[in-house]
Order: sequence, then C-alpha cells, then structure tokens
Amino acid sequence: MEIREYIIEKARVAKAASLRLAYIPTKAKDDALMRMADAIEEKRERIKAENARDLAQAEQKGLSRAMIDRLELNDKRITGMAQGLREIAALPDPVGSIHGMVRRPSGILVGRMRVPIGVIGIIYESRPNVTADAAGLCLKAGNAVILRGGSEAINSNICLGKILSDAASSAGIPDGALGMIETTDRTAVTEMLQAEGLIDLVIPRGGKDLIRAVVENSRIPVIKHYEGICHIYVDNEADLKMAEEICFNAKVQRPGVCNAMETLLINVGIAEAFIPKMFERLAEAGVEIKGCERTRRIAPQVKEATEDDWHAEYLDLILSVKLVDTLDEAIDHINRYGSAHTDAIITENYSKARRFITGVDSSSVMVNASTRLSDGGVYGLGAEIGISTDKLHARGPMGVEDLTTYKWVVYGDGQIRE
Amino acid sequence: MEIREYIIEKARVAKAASLRLAYIPTKAKDDALMRMADAIEEKRERIKAENARDLAQAEQKGLSRAMIDRLELNDKRITGMAQGLREIAALPDPVGSIHGMVRRPSGILVGRMRVPIGVIGIIYESRPNVTADAAGLCLKAGNAVILRGGSEAINSNICLGKILSDAASSAGIPDGALGMIETTDRTAVTEMLQAEGLIDLVIPRGGKDLIRAVVENSRIPVIKHYEGICHIYVDNEADLKMAEEICFNAKVQRPGVCNAMETLLINVGIAEAFIPKMFERLAEAGVEIKGCERTRRIAPQVKEATEDDWHAEYLDLILSVKLVDTLDEAIDHINRYGSAHTDAIITENYSKARRFITGVDSSSVMVNASTRLSDGGVYGLGAEIGISTDKLHARGPMGVEDLTTYKWVVYGDGQIRE
Repeated sequence: MEIREYIIEKARVAKAASLRLAYIPTKAKDDALMRMADAIEEKRERIKAENARDLAQAEQKGLSRAMIDRLELNDKRITGMAQGLREIAALPDPVGSIHGMVRRPSGILVGRMRVPIGVIGIIYESRPNVTADAAGLCLKAGNAVILRGGSEAINSNICLGKILSDAASSAGIPDGALGMIETTDRTAVTEMLQAEGLIDLVIPRGGKDLIRAVVENSRIPVIKHYEGICHIYVDNEADLKMAEEICFNAKVQRPGVCNAMETLLINVGIAEAFIPKMFERLAEAGVEIKGCERTRRIAPQVKEATEDDWHAEYLDLILSVKLVDTLDEAIDHINRYGSAHTDAIITENYSKARRFITGVDSSSVMVNASTRLSDGGVYGLGAEIGISTDKLHARGPMGVEDLTTYKWVVYGDGQIRE
Repeated sequence: MEIREYIIEKARVAKAASLRLAYIPTKAKDDALMRMADAIEEKRERIKAENARDLAQAEQKGLSRAMIDRLELNDKRITGMAQGLREIAALPDPVGSIHGMVRRPSGILVGRMRVPIGVIGIIYESRPNVTADAAGLCLKAGNAVILRGGSEAINSNICLGKILSDAASSAGIPDGALGMIETTDRTAVTEMLQAEGLIDLVIPRGGKDLIRAVVENSRIPVIKHYEGICHIYVDNEADLKMAEEICFNAKVQRPGVCNAMETLLINVGIAEAFIPKMFERLAEAGVEIKGCERTRRIAPQVKEATEDDWHAEYLDLILSVKLVDTLDEAIDHINRYGSAHTDAIITENYSKARRFITGVDSSSVMVNASTRLSDGGVYGLGAEIGISTDKLHARGPMGVEDLTTYKWVVYGDGQIRE
C-alpha cells in the first residue's frame, strides 16, 4: 500500500507537470536540455562514484561480464550522454504544428495539432545511460516522464535522475516532469501499470521477459520492441554482387543487434551461382550456417536447419538459409516466421520489388539495402527512443515526433449544429 | 476450450485474409462494398424476418422501449445501412500513399507508407446496423474484421454477417475477411481479447461497463470511447449573443449524445449580463440547471450543484454551471473534471483563444463553435468508426484513415551500414 501511494503521488505530480509542459516554449525546453547536458559533465565524479557502488554490488552478486560492462558509466559514456542531450536540443520541436487544416462547408477551420502524449512511463533494464536518453526525448516532445530503471543500476539512476531533474527545474521546467522511481521494490512496476488516467503510455526497454510481463499486467497502452527476426530474400533477378555485399553486411557487421539478418531466403534459380561464394565469405567471417535440405545439396558442409531455426533470433554469428521457388513463397515465409521488424528483397525486377513491399507485413521493408539500415538516425529521425514492433501509434524506429499525439483544433465564428 | 478453438480459427482465417487484403486493388474493395449494399437491399425481407425473432425475444425478456427501438431494423434503417456502404465506397482509399519520403545522405529513399492495421475486432452492443458500418469501414481500409455483436441481436447479426460476407466473397474479397462470431457465449469475448498476434486492434462500442471489461481483460491494444463530459467556457470578452446561440445549441439540439455540453463555465465578469437571458431560454427548452453558489446568487431559482455534478455525463436536458474568475481556472476545471472529449471557449480575445487551445488537454478543442460539431462527418472524414477518447493512435473522430497504420519503405541501390 505504501508503494502504491508513492507511485500514485509520482504520477499525480507528473500529470500536473505535463499539463504545463504542453505549452512551454521550445526555447525553454532546449535550454533545459543544454543545462542537463552541462550538469552531467560537471557532476561526472559524483556519477562515477555512485556507479562504482552499483558495479561493486554487481561483482559481489556475480553478474556476468557482459552485464557489468553494460552497467558501467565511464568518462566516454558520460560524455556520450551529455552529447546525446545536446543533439536532442538541436532537433526541431514537434509540438504545435497543425496538419491538414481545411475549411469545411460550415465555415469552420479544422485540423490536427501535434501535442505531447502526457506522462510516459519508461521501464528499462541495466544500462543507466537510458536514463538521460529517455528523459531528454520525452522532455523535447513536451511529455513528463517516470523512469523505472533496473535494480542493479539503482544508485547510478538515482544520482542521474537527481542531476537531470535539478538542472531541468533550474531552467524553469515544472517540478515532477522528470520523475525517477527511487526504490527497487518490484511492486512499483505493477503499480505503475495500473495508474490508468495518470500515465498515458508505457515503453518497456529490455529483454523479452520484461516486455511480456509489462504487456500482461498493463491497463495502460504499451509500445514494445519484441525481437528482430530479419530476412533478406535474394531473388533470381538480383544483382548477385550487390546481394553478396548486402547479405554480408546484414549478418556480419554487428550480429548482436535487432536489425541484423537472421534468415537468408534464396531463389532456387540463382542458388548454385550465389551460394558457394557467399557461404565461403560468411564462413571466413566465422558465421555458422544452418541450411534447409535443398541448401545442403549445394553446400553439404553446412548444418541442418530445423523448424526452430526459422523462429530463431540468434543475435550471433549464426544464419539460417532456405531455398524458395517463388517470391510468394518468400513473402509467406517472412509473414509466418518473421517478427515484423525489417525485411529486404534484393532484385532488379520492378514489379517484384513493388509486390514485396506491399506483401510483407513488417515495420520496415527494403529493396536493395541492408536490414542494418533500419535505424532512427539512418532514417533521419535524429535520436531514437526505440524500435516499435507494434502496429499502432508508432511502427519501426521511433523518434521525438512519435512521442507526440494530436488534438483536433476547430476555429469557428459562431457555428452551431443544424 | 471449444470456444477458444472457434475464436482462434476465426482469427487465423481473418489474419490470412488480411495479408491478401493488404494489396487488393481499390476497385475490388469498392466493388465489394457496392455489392454488399445491393445485397442488403435485395435481402431486406430476410433481414426483417430474422430481426423480428430478436424483437420477439426482447419483448419476452421485457427489455426497455429504448433498447427495443435500437434493436429494430425497419426499411428505413436497412436502406440507411446500404446507403452507408455506398458512401464508404465513394471515399478515397487511404492505403498505399507514402508520406514524407526523403533522400538520405546514404542515397536511400525512405518514407512511411499507409497500410492496413491487419485484423480488427469490433465488440458492440444492441444496434445491429453497426454490423454493416464496421464491416464496410474496416474493408475499405484493407483490414479483416471480426464482429461480435450483442446477444439480443444475434439473429439479425448472423443474417447480416452472412449476407455481407457472401457479397464480399462474390466480389473477390478473400474468405474470412468479414468474420462474425455466431455464438452468444460470453467467453467468446475473453478469448478474442487473448488472441494476441492474430487480432491487432480491438474497438469496443457500447456502454462504460462493456468498455471497462474489455480494457481490463485485453492483451491486444484497445481504442475506446469512454464518455463525453463536454464544457463550454464563456469568457468575459465573448460576443454574448454568439455565446448564447452556441450554448443553447450544444445543450439542447440533441442532449443524449456524447458531444452535447454538460457543464457551462462562465467568467464572473459577464455573468450578470449573460445568465438571466441564457437561463430563461434554457428553462423554456426544459433544461434543468444546477449551479454553483455564485451562480445561484444571480439565479436563485436554480438547483445547487454538488461535486458529483462536475463529474456527470447527464446525456439529458440537465446542465451544471460554474462561475470562474479567470481563463486558467476554466482550463484547470476542464482538465480536472472533463473526459478529454470536446471543449470550447467563446471569446473575441486572440491570446486567450490560443491559450485555451494549448492548455486544454482534450481530443477536440474549439473556439467560437458548438461542441456538437465534434463529428467525423462535420470534420470531413466521411463515415466515422467512433470517437476515440484515447490519446494513442487516433484521437477524437476516427475515419477510414484512422483504421490504417504505416510501414517504413526503403528504396536502396546497394546501400550497407558502414
């Protein structure tokens, strides 16, 4: 009950702040973002000291090397956070523009004005730099934010939250606009997810288990980023040299991320011409290949792919390969086994490119480009709050504008309903 | 378990149909809508016979006159459904347009293409004409739909569903694109709400209890229409004659609907000039007025308003009235007690109009116009699937375009991630 009151109070204060934030001038938000960046750099020793406490506890608990690495805030990462906030300040303010304003027969002018969403809850795991990113992006879009970080980073997060919130307040941002949950009590998340009417949107950032738990318990809309099972389909009319470069890049350049290729679909018509050189190059880069039966007839050295492989998000130097007879078979495979994240076709055929784009039900569909390009920065959004695998509100890379919604604005001069 | 399988099977078929619907030509959808309209008119006797069964059962169960009236499908309503489908056919197809396509430094072209949402579940109560409306709007936007009507209209709905679905199929729409739940078993709704990954969006249409139950049990995103507690604020710089006409219209023209005014806020500066004539006119129209203490000093004949009145959606010839000292007090009252539906200011002051528009957190904000104008038709959306009081995806009146989402489309010529 104590936790519930704590959360409700945080959410109430955030809601009140959000109503004021909705009409705060762009300059005030940008000044606050610059001050937040300066404060992080000025107080870097304090941040490192608090972070050291988290690191010591992590060592004691025997957390993995990878987790401890993600937890660490060194000078480079602190400068990175500050730089990130300055970049957000430099982005255009999405709030206030009116889209599609028209004059209706009655004489009213009506259009949709971009406005903040309100209060956004961010629930995230170990990386404490998310604190600055998320706070900055939400503020730029005029939202209040309630941050709930992982328990292993609690000291770092409380310290960062205080520094950011103080800097924002000193620049005139209403108190409570940047709320940090300063307890590791797990029921805090449950209470956040029940705060319908106070929190408008929840964005979980972390592993599948976290996201699933949030979706199952939330009465508040959730935008989530499940997995990235990305495909490339190499058509029989592809430029095979281009296909090789793109596939190599999509699998090898950074295999541990969500937009790396996990399954390669190859049209049988060019399989014999394409596979030997492609597989050799992938093998040289250390990629383990798992192929369907027909693939293994051409490349007997590769392992056998099972049904599980078509569902797998390896996030590693592993690739499943399947031969298909037609474009439609490729599209069906992607819609069945993919995660609706990012999928590409390599082809020189105009009609097949169009068919792939309309037929594949994914948040990003590409022609002759690497799935690794699916990214807010590459798409021109500036900083990115995440990549949505949902279909509603925002799909794919989400920038500042995706943290806004709209209201209808009607200008009349006395119109009534007849 | 039987019901679960029934629902999952309906949803699977709908999902498969939705993937084909996503790239079906506009003409095929419009032809289907026209055939659906014709079929409803051709089979009106069958519809009326099935409807008579529902009406007889309703009489037997002793349902209220109002409910029986909403249930009835007479010739006029059947013609209305057909006409509605023809109007939907005449709307522009929202699918396929690409918004904001830009060339990025890498040379890729990237933009957001409007695409169907996928499978939409509609859960509604007594009015069987919703069946035709919802089916038509979803089809126009390229979505498959699963309809679950109220048990009191089950015979009408099964009959309408069959006629519509057969007509659509005969025009080449994939089978299963128009699914009707043909059982009154209540667990069917629960199962629909768990069909994550098959159903993409749920829209409940009905009373508060229905909507609350859907929100509490759904793992699927829900767009809902809670209540309409609409306000008009008459500023001290208002044109009082205009204010009187607008307030009278907003309260009296059709009091039983969600965009009727429920609370009138009056600036003290013009209260004595405005109230007597306004209240007299409202009283003549049969409006019962409940006023705050200061209102009653000017108009002692009116009843006393309690805290409950500020929260009330009367949907009747009842109006609560409160005097406020400032614009900010009006805005605070609306944000606190309103339902974020539609709120209006009457003023000749430019800065106050701007302040009201940015300060009020509602889906429609109006200057010098009646709240009754908050409507898809009036706004130019054509037919309307509902009025969303949610903040995400769609707010306020929702038309065909709001039944779509977008995908990112990337055209490259060999780009990789550096």
